[in-house]
Amino acid sequence: MEAVIVDSNRTMVGTSAIMESISSAVNGKEMTNVRFDPTAVVSEPVPAVAQSDDVDDLVNGGGGSEEEKREIVLGRNIHTSSFSVTEPDIDDDSTGDKEAYMASILARYRKTLTDRTKFHLGYPYNLDFDYGALTQLQHFSINNLGDPFIESNYGVHSRQFEVGVLDWFARLWDIEKDEYWGYITNCGTEGNLHGILVGREVFPEGILYASKESHYSVFKAARMYRMECEKVDTLLTGEIDCADFKVKLLANKDKPAIINVNIGTTVKGAVDDLDLVIKTLEDCGFSHDRFYIHCDGALFGLMMPFVKRSEAHAKNTCLLLAKQEFMKYYYEIENVKTVCSLFRYLMPLWIAQKAPKVTFKKPIGSVSVSGHKFVGCPMPCGVQLTRLEHVNALASNVEYLASRDATIMGSRNGHAPLFLWYTLNRKGYKGFQKEVQKCLRNAHYLKDRLIGAGISAMLNELSSTVVFERPKDEEFVRKWQLACERNMAHVVVMPSVTVDKLDHFLDELVEGRSMWYKDENVKPPCLASDIGSVNCCCPQHRMIS
Amino acid sequence: MEAVIVDSNRTMVGTSAIMESISSAVNGKEMTNVRFDPTAVVSEPVPAVAQSDDVDDLVNGGGGSEEEKREIVLGRNIHTSSFSVTEPDIDDDSTGDKEAYMASILARYRKTLTDRTKFHLGYPYNLDFDYGALTQLQHFSINNLGDPFIESNYGVHSRQFEVGVLDWFARLWDIEKDEYWGYITNCGTEGNLHGILVGREVFPEGILYASKESHYSVFKAARMYRMECEKVDTLLTGEIDCADFKVKLLANKDKPAIINVNIGTTVKGAVDDLDLVIKTLEDCGFSHDRFYIHCDGALFGLMMPFVKRSEAHAKNTCLLLAKQEFMKYYYEIENVKTVCSLFRYLMPLWIAQKAPKVTFKKPIGSVSVSGHKFVGCPMPCGVQLTRLEHVNALASNVEYLASRDATIMGSRNGHAPLFLWYTLNRKGYKGFQKEVQKCLRNAHYLKDRLIGAGISAMLNELSSTVVFERPKDEEFVRKWQLACERNMAHVVVMPSVTVDKLDHFLDELVEGRSMWYKDENVKPPCLASDIGSVNCCCPQHRMIS
Repeated sequence: MEAVIVDSNRTMVGTSAIMESISSAVNGKEMTNVRFDPTAVVSEPVPAVAQSDDVDDLVNGGGGSEEEKREIVLGRNIHTSSFSVTEPDIDDDSTGDKEAYMASILARYRKTLTDRTKFHLGYPYNLDFDYGALTQLQHFSINNLGDPFIESNYGVHSRQFEVGVLDWFARLWDIEKDEYWGYITNCGTEGNLHGILVGREVFPEGILYASKESHYSVFKAARMYRMECEKVDTLLTGEIDCADFKVKLLANKDKPAIINVNIGTTVKGAVDDLDLVIKTLEDCGFSHDRFYIHCDGALFGLMMPFVKRSEAHAKNTCLLLAKQEFMKYYYEIENVKTVCSLFRYLMPLWIAQKAPKVTFKKPIGSVSVSGHKFVGCPMPCGVQLTRLEHVNALASNVEYLASRDATIMGSRNGHAPLFLWYTLNRKGYKGFQKEVQKCLRNAHYLKDRLIGAGISAMLNELSSTVVFERPKDEEFVRKWQLACERNMAHVVVMPSVTVDKLDHFLDELVEGRSMWYKDENVKPPCLASDIGSVNCCCPQHRMIS
Repeated sequence: MEAVIVDSNRTMVGTSAIMESISSAVNGKEMTNVRFDPTAVVSEPVPAVAQSDDVDDLVNGGGGSEEEKREIVLGRNIHTSSFSVTEPDIDDDSTGDKEAYMASILARYRKTLTDRTKFHLGYPYNLDFDYGALTQLQHFSINNLGDPFIESNYGVHSRQFEVGVLDWFARLWDIEKDEYWGYITNCGTEGNLHGILVGREVFPEGILYASKESHYSVFKAARMYRMECEKVDTLLTGEIDCADFKVKLLANKDKPAIINVNIGTTVKGAVDDLDLVIKTLEDCGFSHDRFYIHCDGALFGLMMPFVKRSEAHAKNTCLLLAKQEFMKYYYEIENVKTVCSLFRYLMPLWIAQKAPKVTFKKPIGSVSVSGHKFVGCPMPCGVQLTRLEHVNALASNVEYLASRDATIMGSRNGHAPLFLWYTLNRKGYKGFQKEVQKCLRNAHYLKDRLIGAGISAMLNELSSTVVFERPKDEEFVRKWQLACERNMAHVVVMPSVTVDKLDHFLDELVEGRSMWYKDENVKPPCLASDIGSVNCCCPQHRMIS
């Protein structure tokens, strides 16, 4: 079935790190009885799957379909490497063979996970957490089925913790306990599916507006919910282009607007200007009872508040750091580069203060963030908050639960609230503040070193997502687990990403490039259309600058 | 906000076991610093939430709204008992106060979970599992984002295990590896949302047909997806009424049909007759390219195959057991009651053989089951399988994942596949077979004892869900975590439910009834309209029989 798909211009991905590690784990001498053929990685033409923009059937605006319909690199076919389930032998209980076999697969799998965790840079997941204190709860089947606020008849739940976590987020986003409703979701997508569904139930005829760089779940929601959807253009930074938004609003003044606002886009980490979005709506004649805003804060929704809230603290930190830097470079302070680098170092701490705050004091309807991203969690999860008045339109009582149904899912993971509750309690606002500052500093460090090495790169204000030239070698991309789109790759600097790890990565990247571009005829790609010519270091743009 | 709602005819639920246990945990002498007011359980009139049948706006058929619009008993408001997140003190690192505080909350919470697990009977969750071997993997952020078969760039995944599990289910349901597509979901609801969405994408104009006793997620899907929906009547057993189905199909012959078939309904554990559903479609002139069947096998989808497959084995077992029973009652074999009880004991093993098999060799489009139900799992999960040809209509490639999107959720819990893989490997078909037989035997034991005690009860063929008279005392309901609807309660006999547990429960129920119905004017409820007069032991029907 689905095969590994490679763009004809790219190296075949046949020997990357993870597969080597699994293959050596499984094909080692001790483990000859597992069906696995590492050479069976199928190379086939692109299968008849829909392209990523097939939601365009439902989406009126947008454009860019032509570009998006190019071939893209997909990962390997897992059918060639899966661990099949086998029937126990009659004498397994006495010989212990089956247990031994499983233990050896799991031990090797654990090693693979350790390696893969070590080399991870591309996804916004904080892999640095310690939930040892919660291991004692793993053997309970904890299920918060139904509404978080209304206890169901199923007693093995963790609602006490879930509501504690929700209250914390309600404080973060300025909404009173008796005015909000929310729940802990399975992932960022569930938050978006819920927020947009609430919007649609409030405005059944509403049109969904979302920038074209919004997460794919937003367009999936439009398709699922059979909503009219307008894709809005973006600026080069990845932010929503409010000029285009205005044009599209004015063309649809007769219908209410449901808007997805990105607090950190997936690829470029761009933060849509919430205040400007609201102002544009007002300017186009949309009163507050004619629009619904859902804020998709997947990653950065949980980072931004901690930069913002620390205004005074940040200034002090800046001054302190500035002093240290100045002392370090005391004798070469006349060096322009040093001053520039110092400036870059301090920038993120100041600029953060200008971000429009996400708060329910503004006319927004819902906010969602992921829990496995900045907080870190063994399994994906998220938090979704909306106004109580809205959710009542969605809810149904379910008698046999003795609770009510207002969530997307039915049975709900009761362990996730425990993980979040534990981390929020341990770290608190101050802990998050420190980590956010560290991430922003390290992101600037990475971006500066990339630019310094002549590699195209961009880092948005308020973001720890560093976008740069897509490495030519897919094996390198896989080793470092970089997320790629068109000619861009990105690294998301999370608390688990240290300067040492970034140095290791940079050294390998620079070494790799010296090989990939050894031949003078092979040039690094141009990223001008992705991140602007000012950030592009391709031969053509380097010459201009 | 949302308060505890009690029907005016019912006892106020103020001191039930779980709250006592939490309350004593939190208000104990060691824990005076937690904000908690166990007396603050709010008693308010029903809030302005939608009733459970508010999907009727979208649903044409059905009926019964009047009855469903009665007040129902909802659980407690959790806001009064939640564990709030507090900011760490500056000196917490040195004093260890915060860690100690959290450890004590968690230890007490663990005790609550142990108690609650001990007294659980109402939900179809197997609470008996041991995943100690997987604890070593808990500190990894395992995420199978994207398609199970196409590896994403995020290396910390468990697709090798996920595909192994899916292949096992593909064998179970008779579909070739290169003809199916599927994934491990977050819960039964996600399976239904996916199956019905695939159906809608195959037949955009199709009408959704589902029996009125289908899971609430089916009607939620109709509402979310803006599909026309026909609620079909049910027989007293809870099975779909194919006569009514026929009438509704004939009235809508111009539009394709999307049918949700229940392999075990939520309340009565009724299995819809798949073969009769298909025959009805054919009789009404629907050719195979004009309908799509989704089988919701939440609980029993994973039990039925293990009874069926064991035809020969079951017969042998029956004979053996029969011999044992005969020997035991050798001297009183003339006793009619003994013969009846023996018959009941053997019945489930034989009757199971007549159930229509769920298989992709029949014209079905998708099947879903829950993983946390019969298998048992710390967090909810499920398996969804469909035909590869169908899912291609739904899928989009997502470049930055290097995978494709054909699931409802985006990020996906990578631990769930490990739990399932582990249990399937350890137990195998034979292990499940044994457990299913045990459950069916114990379910019959419970039903017989209930009837013997003069309590209305029903047990469907092929089911381990025993429906009986709703206990009058809500505290009793909460203690045993019974799921209730109208005048019915049910116990779902899972592998973790032993005869000892059932005896304990029965003794308490009988004792309770002798109190509740002490006063001659207070009568047990009549269940004739729920489970038929033949199963009803209310004073009126007992007299008749």
